Amino acid sequence: MKPAGASLIGFGTGTAGGATFRAFDPARGVDLEPVFQSVSGTELEQAVQLAAGAAPAWAKLSGAERNKFLRLIADKLDQHAAILAERAAQETGLPLTRCTGEIARTSGQLRLYGEAAQRGDWLDARIETAQPDRKPLPKPDHRSMLRPLGPVVVFGSSNFPFAYSVAGGDTASAFAAGCPVIVKAHPAHPGTGELVGRLIIEAVKECGLPEGSFSLLFDAGFEVGQVLVQHPLVKAVGFTGSLKGGRALVDLAAARPEPIPVYAEMGSINPVFILPGALAERSAAIVEGLHASATVGVGQFCTNPGLVVLQRSAAAEQFVKALAAKLTATPEGAMLTPGIRKNYRANTAARAKQTGVKVIAEAKAATACGAAPLWFETEAQTFLGNHGLAGEIFGPSSLVVWCRDAAEMRDIARHLEGSLTATLLAGATEAAGQGELIELLAAKAGRVILNGYPTGVEVSHAMVHGGPYPAASDGGRSTSVGTRALNRWARLVCYQNFADGVLPPELQNANPCGLQRLVNGEFTRAGI
Amino acid sequence: MKPAGASLIGFGTGTAGGATFRAFDPARGVDLEPVFQSVSGTELEQAVQLAAGAAPAWAKLSGAERNKFLRLIADKLDQHAAILAERAAQETGLPLTRCTGEIARTSGQLRLYGEAAQRGDWLDARIETAQPDRKPLPKPDHRSMLRPLGPVVVFGSSNFPFAYSVAGGDTASAFAAGCPVIVKAHPAHPGTGELVGRLIIEAVKECGLPEGSFSLLFDAGFEVGQVLVQHPLVKAVGFTGSLKGGRALVDLAAARPEPIPVYAEMGSINPVFILPGALAERSAAIVEGLHASATVGVGQFCTNPGLVVLQRSAAAEQFVKALAAKLTATPEGAMLTPGIRKNYRANTAARAKQTGVKVIAEAKAATACGAAPLWFETEAQTFLGNHGLAGEIFGPSSLVVWCRDAAEMRDIARHLEGSLTATLLAGATEAAGQGELIELLAAKAGRVILNGYPTGVEVSHAMVHGGPYPAASDGGRSTSVGTRALNRWARLVCYQNFADGVLPPELQNANPCGLQRLVNGEFTRAGI
Repeated sequence: MKPAGASLIGFGTGTAGGATFRAFDPARGVDLEPVFQSVSGTELEQAVQLAAGAAPAWAKLSGAERNKFLRLIADKLDQHAAILAERAAQETGLPLTRCTGEIARTSGQLRLYGEAAQRGDWLDARIETAQPDRKPLPKPDHRSMLRPLGPVVVFGSSNFPFAYSVAGGDTASAFAAGCPVIVKAHPAHPGTGELVGRLIIEAVKECGLPEGSFSLLFDAGFEVGQVLVQHPLVKAVGFTGSLKGGRALVDLAAARPEPIPVYAEMGSINPVFILPGALAERSAAIVEGLHASATVGVGQFCTNPGLVVLQRSAAAEQFVKALAAKLTATPEGAMLTPGIRKNYRANTAARAKQTGVKVIAEAKAATACGAAPLWFETEAQTFLGNHGLAGEIFGPSSLVVWCRDAAEMRDIARHLEGSLTATLLAGATEAAGQGELIELLAAKAGRVILNGYPTGVEVSHAMVHGGPYPAASDGGRSTSVGTRALNRWARLVCYQNFADGVLPPELQNANPCGLQRLVNGEFTRAGI
Repeated sequence: MKPAGASLIGFGTGTAGGATFRAFDPARGVDLEPVFQSVSGTELEQAVQLAAGAAPAWAKLSGAERNKFLRLIADKLDQHAAILAERAAQETGLPLTRCTGEIARTSGQLRLYGEAAQRGDWLDARIETAQPDRKPLPKPDHRSMLRPLGPVVVFGSSNFPFAYSVAGGDTASAFAAGCPVIVKAHPAHPGTGELVGRLIIEAVKECGLPEGSFSLLFDAGFEVGQVLVQHPLVKAVGFTGSLKGGRALVDLAAARPEPIPVYAEMGSINPVFILPGALAERSAAIVEGLHASATVGVGQFCTNPGLVVLQRSAAAEQFVKALAAKLTATPEGAMLTPGIRKNYRANTAARAKQTGVKVIAEAKAATACGAAPLWFETEAQTFLGNHGLAGEIFGPSSLVVWCRDAAEMRDIARHLEGSLTATLLAGATEAAGQGELIELLAAKAGRVILNGYPTGVEVSHAMVHGGPYPAASDGGRSTSVGTRALNRWARLVCYQNFADGVLPPELQNANPCGLQRLVNGEFTRAGI
């Protein structure tokens, strides 16, 4: 199983002729085979037409059928994990074990969303039975639920070649919700993308699903993505990546004659607030924990802790000194792409020049695509007066903000933009008195962590991976991880006065799908 | 209780000095007292600051407290129904009985949303308990639910002075979700708006809620609305009105540094598809039903049936002839404002000039603000070739589209833009064979009606009032009527590894709020 370098247009493949590109091994500094062909305009149009043609059949698939399809993809990923992980490790510079672990997470995610699709409770099915004798007017029968939006375009991320990519959370949740998917492959790991995409196509065929259920498009530049987002037959977009890239797509979608939702997960600094009691109880453990969270994957996590806020004290200074020593001794790692590494160098260099900002830890990076921790410190008042310091630097760089007191820590919290996470490290009895700070953090993040670290996103029913802008383009009303992710790809439809046999099965009297439904104001799995 | 003409800025009132305007009685053609003062920039800023200041307290209100507040507003509306209805009838030209009925609907809506807030199931509370022994990594405790967005701005509609206005569905659902509200009063019924607004302020005070929980702003023009939508402290917008006005606000909100959601309910033609069997069984009854739905409120309903699609036959021609006769004999009614009437005249005149379009019924309108039914007919192919014919004309004008056969009816359905509703009138055994047409209609509307009429929006758990663009700006992912309306004003927050006492009550182990929660994948009202 080797990548061929061609887009997957329904059951066919793209042709040569346009711009080409190659994957790059950032750890070894070499280009990889094969050459990848950008999709042509005609092929793009074909992919969208196929997806639109498949959409009505997808809207009628049962949850059980979608589950079967998602489980099959998951099984195929697991079955080919070794070869997939090997290619991903080459293309990203991430360790092989990390790639293997990410495949397991991705197949688990596919199965969880498939189970959610089969169970169907996410559909929010509601029934209000008729009251023909009601005065002054009879009340007709109303039944409503979520229905799929139609073709979804997914832009995978550079930093998760599986979990947020071709068969990642956006694709899995869109399939689970009943939508055909077109993935714009990330050029940082096209070979991994193609291999995964071919497994999806196999699953489409083995399940007897229509051509156009899935396509995977390659592009050396940005044009294919822009055309996809503006295509009238595309009904929603999922994106994981930079603020700049995400916002550009959000703006394109908003300017369409018919605006469509773009669920973009973008920039996040993931502040960590450390209270004195935490340092008094377990300073050394926090050095270990925070260091691990800040350096895992060469800091290339969307939940990387980019800001550390604490009050100045002898204990705090000792803590930062120990952390800085550990950071300085951290070995370099290859960043995902030369472009990301270039941005990391430029952004850290710019930050180093800011007035009132000092370097506290700088580890050595010598190889071509290598990067190592580079941390800064500043005073709270400097931070509050310099908006740029609240911006994300993608990579293993964070900023320590020194506060005079607890009130100044709250000022920092008030000043922050939205993040995916906000963390509070507190002593055993200290959190109980932090209601105001916790509320401030909850107002700025999709996930608030008490005595933990932001990296590590659980795929579960309760997870929220989103947050106020710019963490997410929709201001945190949805999540891109967890079973609530399905809801993003659906709209509400109400059926009034329908005879039982004409209704979708999910809304029929006997409740043949076994859903939890809200019937005349009460939840039940019983029929009516 | 008489309107004074001043904005309500928290517990204070606006001052004079800016542009002024008056309400107008369209039925009698006279200006009404008093003079209304546009809010100043300083007062607007004060209203927004007060709302932002009140937001944290609102976020912590229990559902029971919000319910108490909403019930109090409802009681006050009912208590003052006579005087409110009288003023509204003067300002809108709508019959007094309609205004009285609309107040009852509005107070019922407030109570239903209050009950939903108290019950709290809409919060979608989810708990995944910790698994400290899980391999390879322990699983932390995660608990998540919806939290209020913060200050919400509401733009009421011209055609529902109560149900979609100052204390209407957007305001009621935003309060129920825990958000302070600033209403930009509709200039077509400012006196009604002020009277209702003062009742809300009374309720704020009697419930001991903070100043800024509610403000009501008057403006002679559009500037106040534009500034509100762009204000950094405003977190979401509700709008009911024209496509032009709604889209302008949607675009402003999308262009903000931090984009915010605008839930705009806009244009809708509400197609009615009539099958041969329906006419064979009950042609005369359909004449009555469709005529009533198309002329109620002088056709000024967002769910007014603006398109009638049927197959040509002797029976169909006879049906249209009978309907046209009834339409032609319909007495005129006063439209809501001279501007709306001017647009109605201009839009119907433009449609009359379209190639292939013929007038089939024109009733007499003689008074200054009066309008009467003016219906058109055209062939399916003409309709399909002229995009403008699919546009809404606000008022008692509809277009009959003649099809050759069932396939052409489906072509029309495929061609339509989004609507709030789509209706299918079928014979007793005819609907069962219409799966494809029903799916096409469900793809184009938020509510599909079988053998009924589109006007009449039930306020219930199952109602959907929204739909694909341009019916709603969010493509039908939410509803502006029904208890799901609360979800629009909230975002997801997840708490990781929180001790029980530090969690919001809704997520605490004992389940003190008695919510339905998804605990480790199973729904339960029990504690853990």
